[in-house]
Amino acid sequence: MKATGLIVEYNPFHNGHVYHIEESKTATNADCTIAVMSGNFLQRGEPAIIDKYHRTKAALQSGIDIVLELPYAFAVQNSDIFAHGAVHTLNEIGVSSICFGSESGSISPFLNSYTTMKNNEDIYNTTLKHALAEGKSFPEASRDAYQEINLASSDIDLAKPNNILGFSYVKSILNNELPIEPITIKRTNNNFHDELITSDIASATSIRKQLIEQNELSIAIQQAIPKATAIQLQSYKNIASFWHTWELYFPLLHYRVMTMPLEELGMIHGVDEGLEHRIKKTAKQATSFEQWVTLIKTKRYTWTRIQRLFVHLLTNTKRSEITSIINLPTVPYVRVLGLTKTGQHYLNKRKKEIQVPIVSNIKRDAPTLMKLEERASYAYYSILPPEARIQAIKQEYKGPVVY
Amino acid sequence: MKATGLIVEYNPFHNGHVYHIEESKTATNADCTIAVMSGNFLQRGEPAIIDKYHRTKAALQSGIDIVLELPYAFAVQNSDIFAHGAVHTLNEIGVSSICFGSESGSISPFLNSYTTMKNNEDIYNTTLKHALAEGKSFPEASRDAYQEINLASSDIDLAKPNNILGFSYVKSILNNELPIEPITIKRTNNNFHDELITSDIASATSIRKQLIEQNELSIAIQQAIPKATAIQLQSYKNIASFWHTWELYFPLLHYRVMTMPLEELGMIHGVDEGLEHRIKKTAKQATSFEQWVTLIKTKRYTWTRIQRLFVHLLTNTKRSEITSIINLPTVPYVRVLGLTKTGQHYLNKRKKEIQVPIVSNIKRDAPTLMKLEERASYAYYSILPPEARIQAIKQEYKGPVVY
Repeated sequence: MKATGLIVEYNPFHNGHVYHIEESKTATNADCTIAVMSGNFLQRGEPAIIDKYHRTKAALQSGIDIVLELPYAFAVQNSDIFAHGAVHTLNEIGVSSICFGSESGSISPFLNSYTTMKNNEDIYNTTLKHALAEGKSFPEASRDAYQEINLASSDIDLAKPNNILGFSYVKSILNNELPIEPITIKRTNNNFHDELITSDIASATSIRKQLIEQNELSIAIQQAIPKATAIQLQSYKNIASFWHTWELYFPLLHYRVMTMPLEELGMIHGVDEGLEHRIKKTAKQATSFEQWVTLIKTKRYTWTRIQRLFVHLLTNTKRSEITSIINLPTVPYVRVLGLTKTGQHYLNKRKKEIQVPIVSNIKRDAPTLMKLEERASYAYYSILPPEARIQAIKQEYKGPVVY
Repeated sequence: MKATGLIVEYNPFHNGHVYHIEESKTATNADCTIAVMSGNFLQRGEPAIIDKYHRTKAALQSGIDIVLELPYAFAVQNSDIFAHGAVHTLNEIGVSSICFGSESGSISPFLNSYTTMKNNEDIYNTTLKHALAEGKSFPEASRDAYQEINLASSDIDLAKPNNILGFSYVKSILNNELPIEPITIKRTNNNFHDELITSDIASATSIRKQLIEQNELSIAIQQAIPKATAIQLQSYKNIASFWHTWELYFPLLHYRVMTMPLEELGMIHGVDEGLEHRIKKTAKQATSFEQWVTLIKTKRYTWTRIQRLFVHLLTNTKRSEITSIINLPTVPYVRVLGLTKTGQHYLNKRKKEIQVPIVSNIKRDAPTLMKLEERASYAYYSILPPEARIQAIKQEYKGPVVY
């Protein structure tokens, strides 16, 4: 059996994702589609609008055969670390290709960019380091570095968030010489950051915005998502009574910061370079999450970076816990969140060749490796009413979702 | 000027407290009454129903001249440590007597008990240790120990909570040979644990119970408290929108426990002897504070002891932070929460003789000693709406309340 891999967040799963799956199947002729998905917290440092199980169900009902969870240590990270975890997860499960969306839909600019970068690695690194020392944010600094090594017009436009991610996947595959073919699918016309739903292919950003604002599944939203997603969105809301947003976590985050000594705050992953002082100081005035981030934000500390450290603060994740995992040569395990009959068939055939443990739930005597996942889930569900929280967390200790 | 000291919680200040102040003045002929009061968290491990500033105002308007705050490290503790902090605070400020309520109203049983205990200290200690090792709770074990040394009928009945506290005050004064006369006032007829308001002298317990149940100041409550208390209760509720109860903190506490590794939980003051395992395990089922404590409670771990450790968990107070303060020979500072003209006059006259720093607010560059107080206040106010929280915390950085 031939499998292709997708790297996803599905927040929520929408028609653009259906298109992506179909195009990936066409491009690769794969029998099995495997998605590695962020769990309850996402790459840009946000809680997912609905939990990973409901997102898994929507994906399985819409063309994905296996949903794997990207471990927390890789999920809430910059694009390179995120890619490292995702690509290695897919490599361990044995995909022969990875299909990702890009602006152009052509793989050669990615490969050209990789070659250019490899040929100028020293200049790239020096420029990056210098720009960071000047107080620039990481995205700005890497833009400077790419400019310095003259990424040619035949190369990719790294101002586009999706191209940055795609480039990270390609780098990870090629750097590690993995037996995986990188393939890219041309993105449909909607932009990543669009805030309006303008057609049946809408950005996840615009769908989330409307969901939160309207607090219901409007006709426009329903036209932009498969029926399966609509059902899962509604089903999750019936349990939790809301869709997740950062603002709902503000009281918990604020309480945490105000009861943490500075030294303790400085141990949280992402609270670097004395940022703990700024976080504590601004907390005294903050009355909402958005206002708080605005108060912390500077040229150097981007919104996304601050959001990410807030996730780590919410989950009480120390720098030392993260680095011990992300510095491993590969992922420590592969966790199956859900699968179809095809997925089960694939896994059964493949099982013996997989080198890392395959995990399907958090054992109550969870190994240290799963502690981060357990805490992340408890943190995610902590805003639910007590009875709903108990119900929601149960899935963590059960087997995977089978469709 | 001659000052007498009272050790109080005023949760809330009621007619029995007015009686206590008047009797103390009569008994001592003092010109100035000084109360050392627990802050926002109380000896039995509970959040105060209204904050320390509103309780201070009620006290100043009803006969107290100076309200001092018992530092957090001493306040949420067993009776001996609580007494150590309170007695030393009053000693530093220069009172010549301490007046406390007791069942009999006579000091000699306390002094007799002290002598009996001193004469049999080894037996007392051995019995206590043995009983604790058997798995008994501290109150039970000390009852055994008192029995073993034959506290005579001329001694005090240590089954009464107020007698236990009073005896701790006497022990602290005599053990440290402080120049303070212990005086006791006969308590009026209402029992500490009474749950019903049966006259204009009602227990604080019964008043709190009715306040929370009825969520308003009923006629019965108003008859049991001075007008000043009624005003402060209402004024605080106008800010916070509620009176504090443990249940309101349940989501924060639960979130904390579920995102703390076991080792971290074990560092919290009061989480002794592997109790962290029991706390985590029971948390998975708990849907309310009361249910949670019930699940944790055993013969050895009393309700009060569990409540105290929950306060320390809420305020993120480590064992090491507490012990470094309570093992000092005296209190590290004296903090003035409020005072009348008479109180100001007394302080001005006395100032030069006071050996420890007199503090009137938490400086923004608070010395380490005040960090616990700051955290305790933020934890206490963390359940308030954001604007109210900002308003409430301001007083911590201002001078004392002047009446």
